[in-house]
Amino acid sequence: MIPVPPEIEELDRADVLRGFRAQFDLPPGLIYLDGNSLGALPRRTRERLAKVIGDEWGRDLIRSWNGADWISLPQRTGDKIGALVGAAKGEVIVADSTSVNLFKVLCVALAANPGRRVIVTEAANFPTDLYVIEGVIAQLGGLHELVLVEGTEEALEAVLAERGREVAVVALTHIHYTSSRVYDMRRVTAAAHVAGALAVWDLSHSAGVVPVDLGGCDADFAVGCGYKHLNGGPGAPAFLYAARRFHDRFRQPISGWMGDARPFDYHSGYEPARGISRYLSGSPPVIALSALEASVDVILEAPMEAIRRKSIALGDLFVELVNRHCDGLGLVLASPGEGARRGSHVSYRHPESDPVMQALIAAGVIGDCRPPDLLRFGFAPLYLRYADVWRAVMRMAEILRSRSWDRAEFRSRRLVT
Amino acid sequence: MIPVPPEIEELDRADVLRGFRAQFDLPPGLIYLDGNSLGALPRRTRERLAKVIGDEWGRDLIRSWNGADWISLPQRTGDKIGALVGAAKGEVIVADSTSVNLFKVLCVALAANPGRRVIVTEAANFPTDLYVIEGVIAQLGGLHELVLVEGTEEALEAVLAERGREVAVVALTHIHYTSSRVYDMRRVTAAAHVAGALAVWDLSHSAGVVPVDLGGCDADFAVGCGYKHLNGGPGAPAFLYAARRFHDRFRQPISGWMGDARPFDYHSGYEPARGISRYLSGSPPVIALSALEASVDVILEAPMEAIRRKSIALGDLFVELVNRHCDGLGLVLASPGEGARRGSHVSYRHPESDPVMQALIAAGVIGDCRPPDLLRFGFAPLYLRYADVWRAVMRMAEILRSRSWDRAEFRSRRLVT
Repeated sequence: MIPVPPEIEELDRADVLRGFRAQFDLPPGLIYLDGNSLGALPRRTRERLAKVIGDEWGRDLIRSWNGADWISLPQRTGDKIGALVGAAKGEVIVADSTSVNLFKVLCVALAANPGRRVIVTEAANFPTDLYVIEGVIAQLGGLHELVLVEGTEEALEAVLAERGREVAVVALTHIHYTSSRVYDMRRVTAAAHVAGALAVWDLSHSAGVVPVDLGGCDADFAVGCGYKHLNGGPGAPAFLYAARRFHDRFRQPISGWMGDARPFDYHSGYEPARGISRYLSGSPPVIALSALEASVDVILEAPMEAIRRKSIALGDLFVELVNRHCDGLGLVLASPGEGARRGSHVSYRHPESDPVMQALIAAGVIGDCRPPDLLRFGFAPLYLRYADVWRAVMRMAEILRSRSWDRAEFRSRRLVT
Repeated sequence: MIPVPPEIEELDRADVLRGFRAQFDLPPGLIYLDGNSLGALPRRTRERLAKVIGDEWGRDLIRSWNGADWISLPQRTGDKIGALVGAAKGEVIVADSTSVNLFKVLCVALAANPGRRVIVTEAANFPTDLYVIEGVIAQLGGLHELVLVEGTEEALEAVLAERGREVAVVALTHIHYTSSRVYDMRRVTAAAHVAGALAVWDLSHSAGVVPVDLGGCDADFAVGCGYKHLNGGPGAPAFLYAARRFHDRFRQPISGWMGDARPFDYHSGYEPARGISRYLSGSPPVIALSALEASVDVILEAPMEAIRRKSIALGDLFVELVNRHCDGLGLVLASPGEGARRGSHVSYRHPESDPVMQALIAAGVIGDCRPPDLLRFGFAPLYLRYADVWRAVMRMAEILRSRSWDRAEFRSRRLVT
């Protein structure tokens, strides 16, 4: 094995976030470049889960709703995530999945902007965002029109200039799940508002790894996932942001008891809670919420600017090393080359992306694939080292050079995620 | 402490389910009569969770979607719950919360019965059921009418006789959350069908503890909660049943990617999956789903008839002992006296129910309260002993006789659940 060059080791020595790696349970030897799909397990989260399961559920049972304050987990964890995405206290809540939350906020956004019939999104948006918009339109009687545009600020401004008076909602994913391109949230939100439209942001690839300023950008609604850079665990609950102006005058459609003002009065006639709590529906998923809260607590200990700086530096190093060591081996960068325009992952096209990724995984480097031909590599600044990036590229270069991916074992099965 | 009478000890010795208690983590000395609100922790579930968290998430990370088959947890666990409630394979799925699932099935039921504008339910239905119906009506433009009836088969048949041609859906909770009264599902479903209406059942207090025959009753839809008698843990995911005739011709409104036919193709244009999977929306809550699956596996080892027999016997014993030992102490039975008409809990009215329950909890007997004046006691046949029932009543009799509940410490705070 070639030793890690001293200039790379020096980057790790100088890394202000280097102490965070010890807070994660990472299998020795594994290079995990998929925290953008499923974040790693923080030790604190493992310990918190053991306590929630053994003590709070097993020993204290129903008393923990009061004793362990299970009941305020959605608000408390929401506020913590809110601090990561520029929301004020009481503007974010944790509940349900990203899909369900998107359904809720789209319904409210359309009701808040009546008379307008157009929803604008990016044609290549993450599928669930597109599907949920379709579902909302069908549910509301098919009266709305979905307008799909190219994923650039210019294309969005053009459609808003042309059809702005019809547009009710612009719904976008802040960081693209394949290209990693970052929208200028301030610019697009402002353009939407000038046209009289509302802006709904999906922060699934942003929260916890990129500074987001929902309040400063005057965003109307946002949703996002808990299991990527927030490290909340597989299928972690999602979060929902609604600017305060969308709290007390509006009702979301899935009016379950946890969104009621007095759920434990068991009264008839739904009365939505004041504030963000009205966006809740059913009972809070206590175990999963506790995991998410503990994981977010770890992130809150790191300065977001340092997280972003290292995320860009890791991605830039990856791109630079791929340029240097994988030249002519079939990789084509499918993400912005400029770090500031990228989220925390980098994608490459390769005609045999699936077996190449399988071979990489067999060599201890985990990334993932996205159709049709993308290799995707995520850089989690809290637990990745510059040396990991260097080793990952060296192994990939070797696999591509030797064509060791071209074996039946790497072509035999398909990863589901 | 008065010793447990030999005839009570004999009941425990003769109990065919007595071996199951050892499969649960129960705090020594505690008598837990609240499994109808939050089921106890099975040891197997604790062990499974440790494995899911430490090995599947922490060590194997993203590979577990394939390697640990996370991706089929909703269907697999759904089939297991389906076996408890009389559904065929492929008719039940685990997802979201009871509230969200009820929203989905009500939307489909109304779409499947177009032209009819009335939804019938029980006036005293569990609040979230009422609230969600209200929300669906509002979401669909306020065109539907909610008709509230008294909670009896006769009242439902009367309204169906009178207004049957207008009724789209009859939505009921099978076992009442306070009275514990059990609906005759077969009779009510048949009456709904004769009128041309669809029947939607909430099985939150039924699943895992009372035999349910959704298929035999020809029920159209059902939902239910995972954290009561299914022992899935606090805020466990819920389940959703749709008879096969409501699979491929209908679409539920929250069309997230997990309900798509090919979610990992990341294609545009939602194509609902065939079968029950189209009722999924977002990513499966893996940790919570794994807990629920392990807990359901424990229940599946016990014959449902034995569970029901013991559930009735425990409730009957409780009622008999209260009659004998708490006579004149202010308790009024608020559940059917006949065990076969009851679910697995028994409620009593008492003018000071809140402090009485607090005093009971302080004495190591956990039940709960429901407004305005109910004491509620649940009997989980897999981990309760007849001796527990005897001890619980003795302690309650002592508390009521001595009025030891009448202290500031028992009046000071309110339980949230």
